[in-house]
Amino acid sequence: MADLTEFELIARAFMRPVPTGMTGGGDDCALFAVPPGMQLATSTDLLLEGRHFFSDVDAQALGHKTLAVNLSDLAAMGARPLACLLGLGLPRIDMPWVDRFAEGFYALADRHACPLVGGDTTRSLHDITLSVTVFGIVDPAKVLRRDAARAGDDIWVSGQLGAADVACRMLAGTLAMDAEVLAQTRVALERPEPRIALGLALAGLAHAAIDVSDGLLQDLGHVLKASGVGAQIDEALLPLHPALAGLSEEVVRQAALAGGDLYELCFTADPADAIAVTQAARAAGALVTRIGRIAADPGLRVFDRSGAPLRAPPVGFDHFR
Amino acid sequence: MADLTEFELIARAFMRPVPTGMTGGGDDCALFAVPPGMQLATSTDLLLEGRHFFSDVDAQALGHKTLAVNLSDLAAMGARPLACLLGLGLPRIDMPWVDRFAEGFYALADRHACPLVGGDTTRSLHDITLSVTVFGIVDPAKVLRRDAARAGDDIWVSGQLGAADVACRMLAGTLAMDAEVLAQTRVALERPEPRIALGLALAGLAHAAIDVSDGLLQDLGHVLKASGVGAQIDEALLPLHPALAGLSEEVVRQAALAGGDLYELCFTADPADAIAVTQAARAAGALVTRIGRIAADPGLRVFDRSGAPLRAPPVGFDHFR
Repeated sequence: MADLTEFELIARAFMRPVPTGMTGGGDDCALFAVPPGMQLATSTDLLLEGRHFFSDVDAQALGHKTLAVNLSDLAAMGARPLACLLGLGLPRIDMPWVDRFAEGFYALADRHACPLVGGDTTRSLHDITLSVTVFGIVDPAKVLRRDAARAGDDIWVSGQLGAADVACRMLAGTLAMDAEVLAQTRVALERPEPRIALGLALAGLAHAAIDVSDGLLQDLGHVLKASGVGAQIDEALLPLHPALAGLSEEVVRQAALAGGDLYELCFTADPADAIAVTQAARAAGALVTRIGRIAADPGLRVFDRSGAPLRAPPVGFDHFR
Repeated sequence: MADLTEFELIARAFMRPVPTGMTGGGDDCALFAVPPGMQLATSTDLLLEGRHFFSDVDAQALGHKTLAVNLSDLAAMGARPLACLLGLGLPRIDMPWVDRFAEGFYALADRHACPLVGGDTTRSLHDITLSVTVFGIVDPAKVLRRDAARAGDDIWVSGQLGAADVACRMLAGTLAMDAEVLAQTRVALERPEPRIALGLALAGLAHAAIDVSDGLLQDLGHVLKASGVGAQIDEALLPLHPALAGLSEEVVRQAALAGGDLYELCFTADPADAIAVTQAARAAGALVTRIGRIAADPGLRVFDRSGAPLRAPPVGFDHFR
């Protein structure tokens, strides 16, 4: 394989055809159209070995996750995926690894009609370095923003909380290993499913939305700050992942309220729309749970299972702490 | 500075206002419109410490170059810059460094009306890791593609060749240091100017175009392959950087024909349009030089100053060799 040039590597693994009307990799830029009246939504993420994924992670799962975390940003705006770009820095060329990575990436891209239309490959000095940029389209009248929460809104979250955090901490050695719990939670860490269908179903129905990739409290805090409102969350309402049942209260609280690497949507909606929200979510294949309410007063108050306010809710994920 | 969170870092350095009608950083996605009838052109690049830039490079120059190499891809398609995203992986928070980086980045972004509308910051394990994605708009009837060269076309290149390669090799220690030569060539390596105005001037006039970031022969080779044609290049016609005058023939040849990290445009045009090309380039503030001709026969033939064919032209830059 040492004879492969950078360009042959790209050609072999990442040059699948792109849809008619798009120009893909192989020119200086990818080209595509945006339908009239729609806005382009775009987001980029860096994923670094040893920070965002373990060095021994399965390459196929990594390919999946690399795209999934970006698609999740489109989901949080209610945008429909259009295309993506991939930047790939590798310390060496390991074609079986690249092929498996591409397999995981393309499988998710195909499922969401989000063709890979360009990118960049380079040799890295030490670590695998990934960057993905996704593009989606959204009707500006229906887009889900962070700044659209209103006092009195219900606060909802999709899916279940805590699994990815527990799996990550067990793999990192900061939480006692329990093979059975890990087996049940690892899929949430390694193969998150972006909530594209849910985001589309909520566009024009929900008010504010965000994905909780940095932890529920921290990301909800961004919504509150952007919207100029406060909120109350009830721990008793949180949809915990069932594998967390045997863990300590402190570990569960940390995982549910502050655990990052979670690609569920937290959104707000008019209480009068609660049934419409539930039905829209079900049609989109997602469970959604009401976990609290937006208040006019600033601040985020969390109440424990006894109804008492938590004095020091766990803080969310910060890459620089 | 250790108290700054990731989000405060972003807020401090990279949250300048975005133009009316765009939604910038601070939501899951950036949002913007694409004018009717125009296509979106987009490109992404990874820049890694120790691979694409030296660890001690001036942060302001790095901020400039990080965006410049991406804008160069827009230039090569004849696209007008619209917006950009920045991914920034830093091993530690060094606010003076970040501020200087932002200064260089924004100065170039402002000059090309290419607002930074979003991105991602994270801590890296070892090296500074940068990714930029640029967006531009282009009239699909005028876009400059790699596959549009025609037999009989003139081949042109903008600017001067070889300076960045010589500076890079002197700094890397693979070419004997000459402080005077370095002083004259270093600006080409560290502060390349993307040929946006030239690309716009050539759109609808030139046929094929590419930026020669991987070296003239290699990048021209991509045009030939995509267009199904061949070419002849005359070394005597190459616009060499004057600082290369005292260097050996071999060093100059390598730098001019294969030296990468050069953000000039190589393009082809009908010989009947030679005057129009020269005038359009002049109006765009660029020197352009005719260096050869597209042929119907495949293959890239280089003739030396005596008119004899080069048997083994230097190969271009490959990140995996």
